[in-house]
Amino acid sequence: MDDRAARVALTWLAEPGHRAIWALVEECGAEQALVRLLRGDVPDQSLRAAVLAKTADLDPRRRADLTLRRAERLGARIVVPSDDEWPERVASLATLALEGPLKINLDVRPPLCFWVRGALPLGETLDRSVAVVGARAASGYGIHATTEIAHGLASHGWTVVSGGALGIDAAAHRAALAAGGRTVAVLACGVDRPYPVTNSAMFERIVETGLLISEWPPGSEPLKHRFLIRNRVIAAATAGAVLVEAAARSGAIQTMGRVLALGRPAMVVPGPITSAMSVGCHELLRSRPDATLVTGLPDVLEAVGRIGEYPGAVPRGPERRRDALDEESAVILEAVPRRGSVTPEELAERAGVALRVVLRRLSLLELAGFVERRGNGVALSRSGSRAP
Amino acid sequence: MDDRAARVALTWLAEPGHRAIWALVEECGAEQALVRLLRGDVPDQSLRAAVLAKTADLDPRRRADLTLRRAERLGARIVVPSDDEWPERVASLATLALEGPLKINLDVRPPLCFWVRGALPLGETLDRSVAVVGARAASGYGIHATTEIAHGLASHGWTVVSGGALGIDAAAHRAALAAGGRTVAVLACGVDRPYPVTNSAMFERIVETGLLISEWPPGSEPLKHRFLIRNRVIAAATAGAVLVEAAARSGAIQTMGRVLALGRPAMVVPGPITSAMSVGCHELLRSRPDATLVTGLPDVLEAVGRIGEYPGAVPRGPERRRDALDEESAVILEAVPRRGSVTPEELAERAGVALRVVLRRLSLLELAGFVERRGNGVALSRSGSRAP
Repeated sequence: MDDRAARVALTWLAEPGHRAIWALVEECGAEQALVRLLRGDVPDQSLRAAVLAKTADLDPRRRADLTLRRAERLGARIVVPSDDEWPERVASLATLALEGPLKINLDVRPPLCFWVRGALPLGETLDRSVAVVGARAASGYGIHATTEIAHGLASHGWTVVSGGALGIDAAAHRAALAAGGRTVAVLACGVDRPYPVTNSAMFERIVETGLLISEWPPGSEPLKHRFLIRNRVIAAATAGAVLVEAAARSGAIQTMGRVLALGRPAMVVPGPITSAMSVGCHELLRSRPDATLVTGLPDVLEAVGRIGEYPGAVPRGPERRRDALDEESAVILEAVPRRGSVTPEELAERAGVALRVVLRRLSLLELAGFVERRGNGVALSRSGSRAP
Repeated sequence: MDDRAARVALTWLAEPGHRAIWALVEECGAEQALVRLLRGDVPDQSLRAAVLAKTADLDPRRRADLTLRRAERLGARIVVPSDDEWPERVASLATLALEGPLKINLDVRPPLCFWVRGALPLGETLDRSVAVVGARAASGYGIHATTEIAHGLASHGWTVVSGGALGIDAAAHRAALAAGGRTVAVLACGVDRPYPVTNSAMFERIVETGLLISEWPPGSEPLKHRFLIRNRVIAAATAGAVLVEAAARSGAIQTMGRVLALGRPAMVVPGPITSAMSVGCHELLRSRPDATLVTGLPDVLEAVGRIGEYPGAVPRGPERRRDALDEESAVILEAVPRRGSVTPEELAERAGVALRVVLRRLSLLELAGFVERRGNGVALSRSGSRAP
């Protein structure tokens, strides 16, 4: 049994993203992981019991074989990490090891494989992609905003990724199709029966020019918990995500939480404060300072374009000169004496800026190598090479 | 000639907020400042020339006398810093000494005096006050949002402060009046001829139950530059300001810039991205991370209520325990080893959080006394008294 078939068999044993199974595959490969699971050679007792129950009626290796044939009949392919078209970005889910206080479900591990329908190569298609997600019960305003942004993204060569649902998701896919661009629907069920059926015609069009993908084997039902598991792929596979409309505590908010946890641009479209469909958007913007308000395509392109410029970190030292500072930081920096040090409180007074602003800016000035801490005070950086 | 008359005379010599005149008054008092200005005993040559030109036709002391009589006939009073009802908060403009890169006009000094119409004591009325400002060409949505917020503020005992203009300003005043609450219109012209005349009936109602105030003597025209000078008082006299609607680069945006420079809560109501009247609001929210998105009265009350809780600084050390940390900070703090130190990069990997998030949170964790820097690394704080 090869790696591909072993991965398919493993997806029959537990839901995608299962931590223990993923760890086992990392440790000894998919084939060996399957062997060990089937002979009960794993420390986790509940996992042993689950495997036993699942394999009672049919050997997962036999099931994998049946699934592979079925996929072939459907015109679906199975993509695994060793394939050229594997979307590398989903590996970021491996480092999303957030336990304890962070309210992200435990099933945050990378996918084992994808079922794919459509001719485009998966990895390349997702390489320059933006997720556009939101409420099913979208308003006319939300549909309009989604259409503008998704059409623009597709026209600029970006793949529009969404979940295939009614409302915002469908508007995003349709706008990308209308623009003659690329779109990917990430499903929480089998690619043979995309949900919801209302969108069937749209799904057929997506298969023709885009991609339908799923971590679940053909025939899988769109069970409620699967949407939350699926959401991590939408967050991880894209360069950033736009939330257009969302009621309070919606699934799309959960997706954005994962986008933020992954450190990707989490973009949020505001709306009227009188609209229930914008409540979730505004809550997110209020509670997460790292979420970005976007008002249209230019803001979205600016946010995802940045990724290439600053890969993953705050710009440091010589890259950022004094000229590039924002006004407040420049004023605060000017107020630092040439010799000796000052406390943040003195600095606030000298610069005529509120203490909380000084505190916030100082951290960045320090990171950028302009100033350094000395005891309770702050002084100009001694290392001339890094100073402006 | 007493202090009050001297201040009135000084306002005839230069526009309110004039830096050199304010400095002179600080140095030697209003009476002596006037004497020195009239005999040309000031270093600033352009100021000497300006005073000479202004005093050619009428001695400012005589003019002050006439103005005082005129004010009395109008039922207006002159309020100066030595009065019990002087609004202390405007003194914060004295420390707003921002020259150079900050694009705030130079006329940022505190007022010398106020002309006031209305029975309420000025200082007490402004003590618990919130500015509600925005576009003249407001939309129905903007008027609705303004009315909700201003009515709620007035009902909760907060004074609603605005500029008396058409659109958002008038809606704010009217909502406060309708709630039976207090409202203050800060004018950019004389209190005898409030501008615009369209709002005359409203101004009369404000005089009956609220206050009309101005830094300019009766008879002064609402010249264009005066609105910008006036805006600094709206920013400085209130506990915070709400921007409801604004086109790009509007005067209300300038007011909010001053609110931010003063370190007060700058609250912004979002709107549809399709509305030109929300462009300025969204621009402000995008460009200023210290501006707060508000969706209604509860958010506004939360923001201005905070002032009392944390007067002007980030909460430190023992006041803020581990329990109070946000989820991400808690995860990052948990990832700091009990012994030794880690680099931010290692911490990002251990916590499974993006580096830029780690960098941002670390500064706060450090300020709060949870961690300390050691060389290039970070370690748990050694000072047990401050650690949680």
